[in-house]
Amino acid sequence: MENKIYWGSYTSNELANLIKEDPVVVLPVGAYEQHGPHLTLNTDTDIVLEITKEAVGKACSTGIPCALLPPLWLGISEHHMSFSGTITLRQSTLTAMVFDILKSLARHGVKKFLVVNGHGGNMAALRYAIDEVGAHCEVEPVLVTYWHLVADLVARLRKSEFGGISHGCELETSLKMHIAPEDVRKDLLRANVVKGNEYWSPEMFASNRVAMYKPYRQLSEYGHVGDPTKATPDFGEAVFKAVVAELARLITKMQKGDLENENC
Amino acid sequence: MENKIYWGSYTSNELANLIKEDPVVVLPVGAYEQHGPHLTLNTDTDIVLEITKEAVGKACSTGIPCALLPPLWLGISEHHMSFSGTITLRQSTLTAMVFDILKSLARHGVKKFLVVNGHGGNMAALRYAIDEVGAHCEVEPVLVTYWHLVADLVARLRKSEFGGISHGCELETSLKMHIAPEDVRKDLLRANVVKGNEYWSPEMFASNRVAMYKPYRQLSEYGHVGDPTKATPDFGEAVFKAVVAELARLITKMQKGDLENENC
Amino acid sequence: MENKIYWGSYTSNELANLIKEDPVVVLPVGAYEQHGPHLTLNTDTDIVLEITKEAVGKACSTGIPCALLPPLWLGISEHHMSFSGTITLRQSTLTAMVFDILKSLARHGVKKFLVVNGHGGNMAALRYAIDEVGAHCEVEPVLVTYWHLVADLVARLRKSEFGGISHGCELETSLKMHIAPEDVRKDLLRANVVKGNEYWSPEMFASNRVAMYKPYRQLSEYGHVGDPTKATPDFGEAVFKAVVAELARLITKMQKGDLENENC
Amino acid sequence: MENKIYWGSYTSNELANLIKEDPVVVLPVGAYEQHGPHLTLNTDTDIVLEITKEAVGKACSTGIPCALLPPLWLGISEHHMSFSGTITLRQSTLTAMVFDILKSLARHGVKKFLVVNGHGGNMAALRYAIDEVGAHCEVEPVLVTYWHLVADLVARLRKSEFGGISHGCELETSLKMHIAPEDVRKDLLRANVVKGNEYWSPEMFASNRVAMYKPYRQLSEYGHVGDPTKATPDFGEAVFKAVVAELARLITKMQKGDLENENC
Amino acid sequence: MENKIYWGSYTSNELANLIKEDPVVVLPVGAYEQHGPHLTLNTDTDIVLEITKEAVGKACSTGIPCALLPPLWLGISEHHMSFSGTITLRQSTLTAMVFDILKSLARHGVKKFLVVNGHGGNMAALRYAIDEVGAHCEVEPVLVTYWHLVADLVARLRKSEFGGISHGCELETSLKMHIAPEDVRKDLLRANVVKGNEYWSPEMFASNRVAMYKPYRQLSEYGHVGDPTKATPDFGEAVFKAVVAELARLITKMQKGDLENENC
Amino acid sequence: MENKIYWGSYTSNELANLIKEDPVVVLPVGAYEQHGPHLTLNTDTDIVLEITKEAVGKACSTGIPCALLPPLWLGISEHHMSFSGTITLRQSTLTAMVFDILKSLARHGVKKFLVVNGHGGNMAALRYAIDEVGAHCEVEPVLVTYWHLVADLVARLRKSEFGGISHGCELETSLKMHIAPEDVRKDLLRANVVKGNEYWSPEMFASNRVAMYKPYRQLSEYGHVGDPTKATPDFGEAVFKAVVAELARLITKMQKGDLENENC
Repeated sequence: MENKIYWGSYTSNELANLIKEDPVVVLPVGAYEQHGPHLTLNTDTDIVLEITKEAVGKACSTGIPCALLPPLWLGISEHHMSFSGTITLRQSTLTAMVFDILKSLARHGVKKFLVVNGHGGNMAALRYAIDEVGAHCEVEPVLVTYWHLVADLVARLRKSEFGGISHGCELETSLKMHIAPEDVRKDLLRANVVKGNEYWSPEMFASNRVAMYKPYRQLSEYGHVGDPTKATPDFGEAVFKAVVAELARLITKMQKGDLENENC
Repeated sequence: MENKIYWGSYTSNELANLIKEDPVVVLPVGAYEQHGPHLTLNTDTDIVLEITKEAVGKACSTGIPCALLPPLWLGISEHHMSFSGTITLRQSTLTAMVFDILKSLARHGVKKFLVVNGHGGNMAALRYAIDEVGAHCEVEPVLVTYWHLVADLVARLRKSEFGGISHGCELETSLKMHIAPEDVRKDLLRANVVKGNEYWSPEMFASNRVAMYKPYRQLSEYGHVGDPTKATPDFGEAVFKAVVAELARLITKMQKGDLENENC
Repeated sequence: MENKIYWGSYTSNELANLIKEDPVVVLPVGAYEQHGPHLTLNTDTDIVLEITKEAVGKACSTGIPCALLPPLWLGISEHHMSFSGTITLRQSTLTAMVFDILKSLARHGVKKFLVVNGHGGNMAALRYAIDEVGAHCEVEPVLVTYWHLVADLVARLRKSEFGGISHGCELETSLKMHIAPEDVRKDLLRANVVKGNEYWSPEMFASNRVAMYKPYRQLSEYGHVGDPTKATPDFGEAVFKAVVAELARLITKMQKGDLENENC
Repeated sequence: MENKIYWGSYTSNELANLIKEDPVVVLPVGAYEQHGPHLTLNTDTDIVLEITKEAVGKACSTGIPCALLPPLWLGISEHHMSFSGTITLRQSTLTAMVFDILKSLARHGVKKFLVVNGHGGNMAALRYAIDEVGAHCEVEPVLVTYWHLVADLVARLRKSEFGGISHGCELETSLKMHIAPEDVRKDLLRANVVKGNEYWSPEMFASNRVAMYKPYRQLSEYGHVGDPTKATPDFGEAVFKAVVAELARLITKMQKGDLENENC
Repeated sequence: MENKIYWGSYTSNELANLIKEDPVVVLPVGAYEQHGPHLTLNTDTDIVLEITKEAVGKACSTGIPCALLPPLWLGISEHHMSFSGTITLRQSTLTAMVFDILKSLARHGVKKFLVVNGHGGNMAALRYAIDEVGAHCEVEPVLVTYWHLVADLVARLRKSEFGGISHGCELETSLKMHIAPEDVRKDLLRANVVKGNEYWSPEMFASNRVAMYKPYRQLSEYGHVGDPTKATPDFGEAVFKAVVAELARLITKMQKGDLENENC
Repeated sequence: MENKIYWGSYTSNELANLIKEDPVVVLPVGAYEQHGPHLTLNTDTDIVLEITKEAVGKACSTGIPCALLPPLWLGISEHHMSFSGTITLRQSTLTAMVFDILKSLARHGVKKFLVVNGHGGNMAALRYAIDEVGAHCEVEPVLVTYWHLVADLVARLRKSEFGGISHGCELETSLKMHIAPEDVRKDLLRANVVKGNEYWSPEMFASNRVAMYKPYRQLSEYGHVGDPTKATPDFGEAVFKAVVAELARLITKMQKGDLENENC
């Protein structure tokens, strides 16, 4: 049987066969929230969908049993609600969704799950959900926020200073320039770098020593934080390719059971 | 401003402007569940996504302020869980999702919502959700299950007898033949007509006098109910076009406030 | 053992015996809400109690094992709360009640349940409850809203036009004239016919193509919708007798297992 | 306006007037649970309904604004579930019901509520509910378990020793002999006196120093505890009349605001 | 193995051994709420902690297997929230905490639990929690509010009249004078005796015939109720020693299984 | 007014004054879970309580308005439940507790909260709770896990290799040797270093790229992970002092509002 990318493009009988091969099922989770004056609301969902599509396709093409679920296209965005159009779930709703999906598949015998997150605000609820699934479904789900896979590459290639990559920033704008340039309002790019301090920074790659709740209006009058004026399609393409490669590698290792080993 | 189809393809500032025009926001809800040996799991979601995309596009093109949300791609499918691959939400989870989405948009000033359902099993939870939104958000949402808009046309054109249109049936198979023929396993079509009785029938257009809970395994050893052997791309196209036209008309009437009037 | 009507009029040991006979247990659900200037708040509960009492009595008298629970006397009436005196449950509360009752009896071995509804506003929550029971209790409950059993007779005998039978209407007023004439304020009858439109009508027998949430104040300044001036005790009696006969027949068929068959 | 007993026997407009008189609204709560070999499942509900009906009627007849709601006919009976036929709510369900009812009426302006309990197992959930209502509805509900109003009279008139009045006991059996003798299986009366110890006793009038959870099967192989062989219709009548008088007096004092005073 | 007082002062392996001895595990529950001008917020928690520490120590020293959990230091204090500093849980939160703790230990094989309460406002939620644990964990928890163990001694020794022992009163102030005199503001003692009436009194040892919800501001402009001017360290010491002795005796009887017997 | 350490050692009126000074309120959160053969169950709670007591005392002594709440002594330990004695909350319970406490104090006007966590397993639930408080209480809580404040010092002083500091490890054992040597079973120390891999490691200071749910039995047959054989009281003391100093500094900066600034 030729492997397809989407769980939904199989029939039930075909899935019964796929499940026997011990596949990794991938669930992308994004957001539908404001991203400043220059990016569209679909930014997080769009990015996470494109990278998982490519990554699952790549893993499939090397014979690794895996499949992609459609994205959960909205997440936890209460802190962005003062900017128009933003849609948010309660944390309990997102948690319930992830639990129900993984629980359903666990009932059919799926053992390996990779939840790929594309929105910082989802982290607490997704980690909470993963712990619920682990505690009650007898499977061991893995959660990754995509940029954590490419910290080194981003550090090497970024043009903005610390505080320039956060939300609607050099990184997200570059990724959208690569994936969907029609969603970038190029005439509205402006820098809004917020460095933070020794305890906490909104910078995506900060190692924060404390966690805080910040309504976004306090960090930005425009809605975004970071420096989208430094964004380029080339940086976007480089990040995109690196994330896809890393995700495909992670899926492969999960499917082979290597994630359980010290020398993985 | 040119109207786009997707809510997510606007920036926050653009949506602030769109909201001033009193748009109809459309939320499609599908399912990810088994559809017999011949149809893929994405059937309901795929259909409801394609029809809402066309319908919103059509309404937009005539200047009606409206926008489409991405689909809730899974629904209530507990009664299908004995068939592999099916994913189900608890009813409380689906209800919470719909509530959170509409509540978020209501906070931004959106007043008009059309929830378009593509799966029979979702009806109770969606109606429940609509009532929660109505009671707590000071908006008046409208819920439609797409086939209820084209009962007459289907009655006129269908080839199968009563009981032939239900689940993975003449209608759904025809729609998929039109929209995504690669998802139809044509060599695996077989009839499984279930007429029901004077109280209850699984037929999609039955006027049931009672409601019952039926695990699908009791209705079908294959997973589907109805007669997909009667399905044709032509019937699929005719239904598709009619649903799109009716949805666009409904969106238009909602936006103009005509749904409040007796002579609408 | 002589069969009694009420579950509560048996001792525990007697019920252990009754349960061995595979009885149908009937749960009536009403409402305690305003019904315009001319009908009392108990209207829905009173009607559904009287019809189930008669119907269970009738079935019992022909030797069919069955029993009646007391009514859930209040339901979902949030949309009537702007009219004084109305009591409403949250939907989650009604759902929990029905679940707990049926689950309790399922634990004792009861397999057959008929929930008889007398209030339109309860439909979503009751259907939701039935689906929860079906999914978690290994029984197959049946739900009926009483007027759905006598659509033909009502169509034949009604005097009011379309829109005349809805809430505190020709039908409900006639039923109360038959059952409890002291609850009808005959000097306060006035017509308030609301026809609705091609999508939705409050008429009880409308085949609505969409579902909407409507605060009742929008439909009626008086509280009722329909034409109680056309009500007569004779029409009430005819409907009452027909509903009772149909319910007794349904209970009988359920007890014999005929509802599972196509030729029932 | 002549005062009626039942809230449900008024129209909405009539209730708007009644509410202006600052009525006491009475909510009886019973149970549907096993009561040994000799009493029917409706025992608690039947008793609490009859006493509240008489008491509200008596208060009404002296011009005190008050009204009776239908009973919540089932309560918390998990500890009786090993005896057939028993129906139980989860505690959260009963709490939600009482909250919803009192909250609804508080929204209409009702300020005075008397919840009359007839089942020991309901006490925790009802007290919990009363505290929720008090904390969130700006009214001050009163809760009474009926036998607490007549401790002195019972002590004077009872024939059974300590441990003889508990569940399906001298008191409940006597009350049913008075109210509904057809529900007493007189040939099946047997004593099952459980005295308990210095910490805890199932005796209805014990001043227990600790609270415990006891599955009823541990206290009684028959289902009841106490001595129904001592029951008489005369004792039942005396208790009934005393409870009614005390309840009517309590309603009267509540309505006049005397319960707030030290010299009430 | 020498018995220690605290569950937390054992290692996991040591607890595995202790559990084999069928220990009584004691959970103290207090409150963090205002106690008038003269007592600190820790009053209830401090008292209940000191008495359980002494009592468990005493039982341990006589070879009874038992252990103490740290206190739940806050409880249900919504009715005190108009006085600054008070912290309250929702009732559902306290119930969940007690349930989770007892359920966890029940999973390890602990069978005997004694919940020792030090705050009147916790009673409904704790009784509710005990019933949940009893219904779902196959253990039989015991709940005691400490002053119920020493009613006779208090009656004999108290100086204040009825209404003088309630909240921040003669009894609590005396106990704090004995346990932690630095927490008593001796210059701010004033009497605020509230007798109540025949139905309800805030007096700690009243046999109330009804339950009511009372915001504390209605009972006291100062925050406390009762007569702390009558408090003495000697009374505090006498009560303290009596409670400790009674608790140690109760733990001993529970561990030996005597609480199940009539002659305990 | 002399500042005290504990919130509970003030009266209500004194707290009303303290709140006017805009204090930082500190809430320690620990766990009651197995820590291998050599450490007691109170390890996390004991540590977090001692460090917060010292830190608040230190800040108080320099005139910074602040106060300490008693610890939440148990947390999320489901993954440790296969080791005897462990107590766990559901995540929803811990979240509710933190929410209720902070919400109560926010109602009195407290604006600044520092939640100090001492258990890795609590992170998701605490972050979730912080986000709920931030979204609903109009305050901005700060969350810190204590070891994140002293990463540099630990790196400098530790003797164990990577994987040696995790759970019941060099760090926790050293801290207990300093704080409570009687809780360390010195004869039972043994190394169980788990390095993990490039994606995930149980090492406390690992920068994990993915999150996983791991039942602890999979990581350790003994219960602990890391190398307690390298533990010394001196290392414990150094870490303890550094954490205390950092916490006091953080409290001071929070109280002065410096955490909002880039140059803090």
